[in-house]
Amino acid sequence: MFRRAAPELEVYLADARRQVEDALDRAIPPLGTPPPRFHEAVRYTLLLPGKRLRGILTVAACELFRERGDGAVALACAVEMAHAASLILDDLPSMDDATLRRGKPVLHAVVGEANAILAAVGLLNAAYAAVLEAPGLRDAVRRQAAACLAGAVGAEGLIGGQVQDLESTGHKLDLEGLEWIHSHKTGALFLAAAQMGALAGGGRPRAREALHRYAKNLGLAFQITDDLLDYSGNPETTGKDAGQDRERTTFVNLCGIEGARKLVDELIDASVGALSPFGRRGAILRALAEMVRVRDR
Amino acid sequence: MFRRAAPELEVYLADARRQVEDALDRAIPPLGTPPPRFHEAVRYTLLLPGKRLRGILTVAACELFRERGDGAVALACAVEMAHAASLILDDLPSMDDATLRRGKPVLHAVVGEANAILAAVGLLNAAYAAVLEAPGLRDAVRRQAAACLAGAVGAEGLIGGQVQDLESTGHKLDLEGLEWIHSHKTGALFLAAAQMGALAGGGRPRAREALHRYAKNLGLAFQITDDLLDYSGNPETTGKDAGQDRERTTFVNLCGIEGARKLVDELIDASVGALSPFGRRGAILRALAEMVRVRDR
Repeated sequence: MFRRAAPELEVYLADARRQVEDALDRAIPPLGTPPPRFHEAVRYTLLLPGKRLRGILTVAACELFRERGDGAVALACAVEMAHAASLILDDLPSMDDATLRRGKPVLHAVVGEANAILAAVGLLNAAYAAVLEAPGLRDAVRRQAAACLAGAVGAEGLIGGQVQDLESTGHKLDLEGLEWIHSHKTGALFLAAAQMGALAGGGRPRAREALHRYAKNLGLAFQITDDLLDYSGNPETTGKDAGQDRERTTFVNLCGIEGARKLVDELIDASVGALSPFGRRGAILRALAEMVRVRDR
Repeated sequence: MFRRAAPELEVYLADARRQVEDALDRAIPPLGTPPPRFHEAVRYTLLLPGKRLRGILTVAACELFRERGDGAVALACAVEMAHAASLILDDLPSMDDATLRRGKPVLHAVVGEANAILAAVGLLNAAYAAVLEAPGLRDAVRRQAAACLAGAVGAEGLIGGQVQDLESTGHKLDLEGLEWIHSHKTGALFLAAAQMGALAGGGRPRAREALHRYAKNLGLAFQITDDLLDYSGNPETTGKDAGQDRERTTFVNLCGIEGARKLVDELIDASVGALSPFGRRGAILRALAEMVRVRDR
């Protein structure tokens, strides 16, 4: 999905991803107390191969301020769990009615709709548990990080965006309406991922504001490149149903391919610009943004 | 649903219920930011008339140790929100496929399945937000209370119980299997309600252990009286589909009416017995347990 990154970034990404995935694997043990089938359902979507971009954003944001500890990794896991929960819900028959996700059958096709819904709710719940038990963090930080997650998931975030997205099915949206949906459906969790990392790192409010601008622009750019990939991609490379988004308003059918790419360039420029207060410490986040810029090219 | 209680208890219950319901009403404003339809969906189940037994348990548990403050009321709201979320999910077409809840059409019949699922997830999320922002509590208490909620909702609680309940549909359960399901589906939230109240009140571990025994026995007794009411009740008094539970194993079809009532008596006796360390301070909790004992008689 990403082009080959610079060698040092590639090492960083592989290492951070492995650390987040190992922690996810431990967080939901394969054979828990009954009911084991539930654990398998939860693990199915959570452990599908993915980029873990949101989780990596959390640990990289922490590292602006201090070394990544187990606490930051736990917060990264929480972000990935909330994201996995949202994917399961989006795919449900009553929502997008998808058949493929990351190249595999969607969860409800495997374990049935009821178990898929319960797995999604269980993942969101496990995300909170991970934040609340995050090792090595002060209770004030855990509380702020969990409140941050709550803001990203609720009516002002993922859920609000999804409700509005469903409401607007069949209506033509303008750019403002489309941006509203995606700043909630996608952007809110990018913002929370970065803020939670900064909280784990002990970042001050002013630094967190700069990071906020970075993540806000990055999240929207990411969604636009998703639309671009979906438009041009086939299920083998996107891992999703082909052209599933063509029936709805996307950045591509609203702005055209070139217009959408121009928008991505502007957003990534703004995103990278917001990192200037961090100087060299912002190198990883800058490189992540540059990777998102060329995702579809 | 409850017989007339002693006058002083009636005043207490009416007052506590009003306070919890006012706080719920404020927690989910009728006209928030977009999407308003989501807020309406969330409010629909949350504000249906109910006994608020779990929320009242939270404030009454707090009052074993100190006066009920806004913090304890916020935790009571969180418990009621998590409970409302579980009702919405239980009623879904892929689960119990119910038509009535508290005498009104189930939420998915009113707003559609997708919005109902999102409302349930939003309610669980709002429950966490309520705990994390609970006024007047220390961060350590908020964190412990939120962790308590996470335990009650997850695989070891509501969700685990619901998964197992769905798995066992069509199979005959023994008493142990039935108790396992209900100690998770119902009991876990009773336990958390009491523990969260005790945390808000500053209760010590030994007192919290006594309260744990009280709530554990009360929760199971409550579920058995639910089965008794469902068996004998009609939809007008139970507010649920009549005899919906006859197709599944219940305490009534496993133990008979007299056997189930005997079990309730034993559990309520154990529940009341656990309150002895609290002396006169346990009067409200004792009265609540006695009300549950005679719910169906």
